[in-house]
Amino acid sequence: MNTDKIRQDIRGLKDGKIFLNNAGSSLMPSVVVDSMIDYLELEEQMGGYEVANRNSEVLEEFYSETAKLINAKPHNIAFATSATEAFAKALSSIIFKENDVIITTADDYISNQITFISLQKKLNVKIIRMKNLPDNELDLDDLEKLIKEHHPRLVAVTHIPTNSGLIQDVEGVGKLCKQYDILYLVDACQSVGQMVVDVQKINCDFLTATGRKFMRGPRGTGFLYVSDKALKENYAPLLLDMRGADWTAPDDYILFDTAKRFEHWEISYASLAGFTQALKYANTIGMHEIEKYNASLSQTLRNNLQSSGFRVWDLGKHLSSIITFTGPEGDLDAIQKVLNDNSVFFSVTYKNSALIDFTRKNIHGIVRLSPHYFNTLEEIENVSAMLKESLA
Amino acid sequence: MNTDKIRQDIRGLKDGKIFLNNAGSSLMPSVVVDSMIDYLELEEQMGGYEVANRNSEVLEEFYSETAKLINAKPHNIAFATSATEAFAKALSSIIFKENDVIITTADDYISNQITFISLQKKLNVKIIRMKNLPDNELDLDDLEKLIKEHHPRLVAVTHIPTNSGLIQDVEGVGKLCKQYDILYLVDACQSVGQMVVDVQKINCDFLTATGRKFMRGPRGTGFLYVSDKALKENYAPLLLDMRGADWTAPDDYILFDTAKRFEHWEISYASLAGFTQALKYANTIGMHEIEKYNASLSQTLRNNLQSSGFRVWDLGKHLSSIITFTGPEGDLDAIQKVLNDNSVFFSVTYKNSALIDFTRKNIHGIVRLSPHYFNTLEEIENVSAMLKESLA
Repeated sequence: MNTDKIRQDIRGLKDGKIFLNNAGSSLMPSVVVDSMIDYLELEEQMGGYEVANRNSEVLEEFYSETAKLINAKPHNIAFATSATEAFAKALSSIIFKENDVIITTADDYISNQITFISLQKKLNVKIIRMKNLPDNELDLDDLEKLIKEHHPRLVAVTHIPTNSGLIQDVEGVGKLCKQYDILYLVDACQSVGQMVVDVQKINCDFLTATGRKFMRGPRGTGFLYVSDKALKENYAPLLLDMRGADWTAPDDYILFDTAKRFEHWEISYASLAGFTQALKYANTIGMHEIEKYNASLSQTLRNNLQSSGFRVWDLGKHLSSIITFTGPEGDLDAIQKVLNDNSVFFSVTYKNSALIDFTRKNIHGIVRLSPHYFNTLEEIENVSAMLKESLA
Repeated sequence: MNTDKIRQDIRGLKDGKIFLNNAGSSLMPSVVVDSMIDYLELEEQMGGYEVANRNSEVLEEFYSETAKLINAKPHNIAFATSATEAFAKALSSIIFKENDVIITTADDYISNQITFISLQKKLNVKIIRMKNLPDNELDLDDLEKLIKEHHPRLVAVTHIPTNSGLIQDVEGVGKLCKQYDILYLVDACQSVGQMVVDVQKINCDFLTATGRKFMRGPRGTGFLYVSDKALKENYAPLLLDMRGADWTAPDDYILFDTAKRFEHWEISYASLAGFTQALKYANTIGMHEIEKYNASLSQTLRNNLQSSGFRVWDLGKHLSSIITFTGPEGDLDAIQKVLNDNSVFFSVTYKNSALIDFTRKNIHGIVRLSPHYFNTLEEIENVSAMLKESLA
C-alpha cells in the first residue's frame, strides 16, 4: 500500500487533521472532485442533455467499474443515489402479500428496520429477526429452521452494521437461501470499498451499496446489483419509469433486459462521473490490498483502546474497520472532547439509531472510529495515545 | 425583464449559441454552478457529514425558497432527485388495492404512464384516461362522470406535457377533486420555473417538479409538495427510511410531521445547494414576470413558424413555452440540419415517448423548441428566419 502517494491524492488532508469517519462520509480523492467539477462546467456550457449525449461512452464506465469491484457483469448494475434508495428499489420489485415473511437480523441498519416496520404496518408483512449465537455471529441453524417454518418471501441482511464492528456472515446466509430458493437481499453499504465483496460468493439476488463511505465517492451516489436470476424472473421496480421499459401500447410496455430498469431516468451525471472515478481508484489499488491493510489498522486500534481501559463494543468473530467504544463507565463526552481538540474526525451513534443492539448491550451510545487505507499506523498510534492519556 | 443582466449571468452563452432546449435541460446561472463547486470543495476538505452539519441553516433555505415559489409552507416541501422520483414517492404513499381506479389524462408524461401500467399489471389497479374536448382541453364533465362512477383512489394530471405546447387545466381538475374529496397529484415538471404555479389555487395533495428544466437548476434535483391534509392523514412513502420516522421500539416508529418524511436520508447536498440558488434566482426575478415574458416569446415563435408553412402541433386554448412542430409533410430532418448548422439547441421527440398523443395526431415525431426568459426576441426572430429560409 503506497500510503504516501494515496495521501498526496487527498487535498483535504492538511493542518494535522486525522480523518477517521470513513464509515460516515469519507474524504474523496482529488480525481473524484475534479471529474465532477469538469462535468458541471460542461453542463454549464451546453446544458445537461447535450453533455450526457456526448459523454455516453465515458458514463458507461460506471457499470464496468462497479461490476469489476464486486465480480459481476455490467448488465447487473444499476446506479442509485444511496444504498437505502437501492434497497427500496429492490424491495419495490417484490409484490408482498399479507402474511408474507421477511427474515432479517437484529443488526440490520436503522433505515432498513424502519422500512420493514412500514411494510409490517401497511401490508401486514411479518418481520422475523434470526437469532445470534453467544459470540454474536448469526445463528444459521435458527435461520434454517425459520426458512423451513415460514417459507419467507425474502431474507435481508446488512453485511456490516453501521453501529458495530461486526461483519455478518452473508455467505453462510447465501448458501441457505440458495438451497431453499429464497430471494436474498444484502445491504453492503459499509462493506463495499472497505473489503472484498464478491456477489458470486455471497450468492445474493440483490446487493446495495453507497458511494460516500468506504468507496470515497460523492454524496448522493450508490448502486444496486441485480442477479441474472432476478433479471430473468422480471423483477423490476413497482413504480417503474421510462428508464425501465419501452412504452409499446397505451396500456402496455416491454421491460428492458438489464438492471438499469432499476434506475430512475433522471440522475446527477456529475455525481455518477465522480463515483466512477472513485470506483476506478479502488479497483486500481485492489480490494484485497485494501482489506488487508484495513484489517491490520483496525485490529491495532481496537487492541490499543482495549488495553487502555476503554470498553470496545465490537462483538463477533469477524470484525470490520468500524471500531465502536465508550469510556469505562459508558461515558462519551470526555472521548469526544479529546478527539475534537485534536482535529480527529469521528462520529457518535446514539441508541435511537441502533435500538436493538444498544438495548442488548445496555448502552446509550458509542463513539465510532472508522479508519481506511489512507490512514497511517502513526495516526492510529497517535489517536490511541491521546485517548489513553485522557483516561489517566 | 433585464435580459442583458440575466444573460451576463450565464457563462454558457457564447459563440453565437441559441439555447432553446429549456424543456430538456436548461443552462444554469453561474451562481448555481459556483455554489455547487464551493460545496464540493468543502466536502473534499472535511468529508460530507461535517459540511452538512456546519451548513444546516443554509441548506434549510431550499425549503423556504421552494415554498415561496409555489405558495406553500416550508414544511410542505421535500427534496427529490427528479419530478419522476417525487412522483413515485407520492404514489408509494397510497396503498392501492385490486380494482382501485386512477384517473389520468392522455397527455400525461411517458414515465407516469409506464408507472401506471406497472400498477395495472402488478396490482390490478385500473387506469382510466379522461377525455379531451375537440379543442384538446380536458373534458371536465367527463372527469366528473368518471369520478361519480368509479370513486377513484387518485386523480393524476401532468400540468404541461413534455411533448406538446398544451397547458392542462389543473385548477379545473382540482376543483372537482376537492368537491368529491379525491386525492390529487399534479406533475408540474415542465411548468415550475416556466410560469406561475400556485398549489393553493390548484388545490392538489401532491405536486412534483424537477430542477434541471425551466428552473435552471442542476440535474438530479427536484421537489415534492405535500399538502397539510395529506400530511395530517399520515401519508408517507411505503419504503420509508430514517429520514421519515423516529425508531421507537423494535417493531414501531413515530412518523415525523413534515414532508421531509418523503425524502431519502442520503442526498447530494451539493446538488441541493445548487438547486437552492436556482430557486432564489427565479424568485428574485419573479414568476409573474417570467410567465409573461415566456408567453410573449413563444407566441411569436409559434406564429412565425405557422406563417412560414411549418405544422405546429400545439393544440389547446392555453399554450406553454414548449413549441412542437414538423415540416409541412411531417418531416424532421431538414429542420434538424438547419438548427444544428446554426448552433441552435433543441430536442426531438419520437412517437414511442408520446404514444397516445402522436398516434392521435398521426405523426412519428416532432422538433421541440422551448424558449425561456434569457432568450431574446432577436434570437426568436433569427431562428424563425433561418427555418423559413430552409423551406424556400
